[in-house]
Amino acid sequence: MPSPSPLARLDLRDFIGAVPDFPKRGVLFRDITPLLASPEAFAQAIDQLAEQVRGKQVGRIVAAEARGFLLAAPLALKLRVPLVPIRKPGKLPGRTVSHSYHLEYGTDTLEMLADAVPSGARILVVDDLLATGGTVDACCRMVEEAGGVVVGCAFLIELVGLGGADKLAPRDVIRLIQYEE
Amino acid sequence: MPSPSPLARLDLRDFIGAVPDFPKRGVLFRDITPLLASPEAFAQAIDQLAEQVRGKQVGRIVAAEARGFLLAAPLALKLRVPLVPIRKPGKLPGRTVSHSYHLEYGTDTLEMLADAVPSGARILVVDDLLATGGTVDACCRMVEEAGGVVVGCAFLIELVGLGGADKLAPRDVIRLIQYEE
Repeated sequence: MPSPSPLARLDLRDFIGAVPDFPKRGVLFRDITPLLASPEAFAQAIDQLAEQVRGKQVGRIVAAEARGFLLAAPLALKLRVPLVPIRKPGKLPGRTVSHSYHLEYGTDTLEMLADAVPSGARILVVDDLLATGGTVDACCRMVEEAGGVVVGCAFLIELVGLGGADKLAPRDVIRLIQYEE
Repeated sequence: MPSPSPLARLDLRDFIGAVPDFPKRGVLFRDITPLLASPEAFAQAIDQLAEQVRGKQVGRIVAAEARGFLLAAPLALKLRVPLVPIRKPGKLPGRTVSHSYHLEYGTDTLEMLADAVPSGARILVVDDLLATGGTVDACCRMVEEAGGVVVGCAFLIELVGLGGADKLAPRDVIRLIQYEE
């Protein structure tokens, strides 16, 4: 018998953990560490994201720390486009723009280098998981205020019930895996 | 005239910025965002790191958030080995181990999933920049306490004058670029 093809398409759901009551009671945490621990699944996730955005003429990828970097760096290399990191305040040197957004308790702020997105640049925003969409919406707003065009927001996982895709609308949302919540 | 070969070796130093007085007066900050913005330079950095660790039989890559992820994710995919993320406290689900270490002011703590490093696993620890070595030393200690073997600590940049390689000794240090400080 021939061995299974190394190109066999994996079901990426098999590489997402579900941890009850994390980070707090009543929350089912979707855990990507099993996917990171499987080079085959991780590579297929990047390949599938690249396939899904083909035709969008992505010019740059924008991603917020920290987990966003895990997908955005390989995807930027695969698509051969620049990677623009978005960080917590005080981490990026030089002139920055920032955006604050509401969390369940309080607010959070993200920063981007002021010259990272040229006017008219076609931007793909990447993160691991779409929940309420606050982080990626903040990224999109910084991109758009800089004159960039968000051609899509790409995620490994979408928690459909939390309304993130509505928050990001009318921007195009790409996801590889959906869970109700 | 033929155009330059796309495989021409770039000088990665050309893609590292130097920002004076960041994050505080008197510090010259080495900025990797120009490298991230050049897919060619970024890809060559990953290729060169992969070359440098060939022969070490790396079994897994361990990297701390956030900038460490930018190099570690593509390198793990290139080497086809699992990637183990190390994070600030409270971010990883399930049973974790932690290590606290001294900063210039106060202490910092990092966490790793308790079962992420099997006994005897051959581990490459990856980060973007080696300064005093505190973060990567903490990563190494967690790996070693779990029974893993650190076969090397790989960096894009080493600030030689800050003594990080001494702190990490006798572990092997790999770096692509050195600056005095």
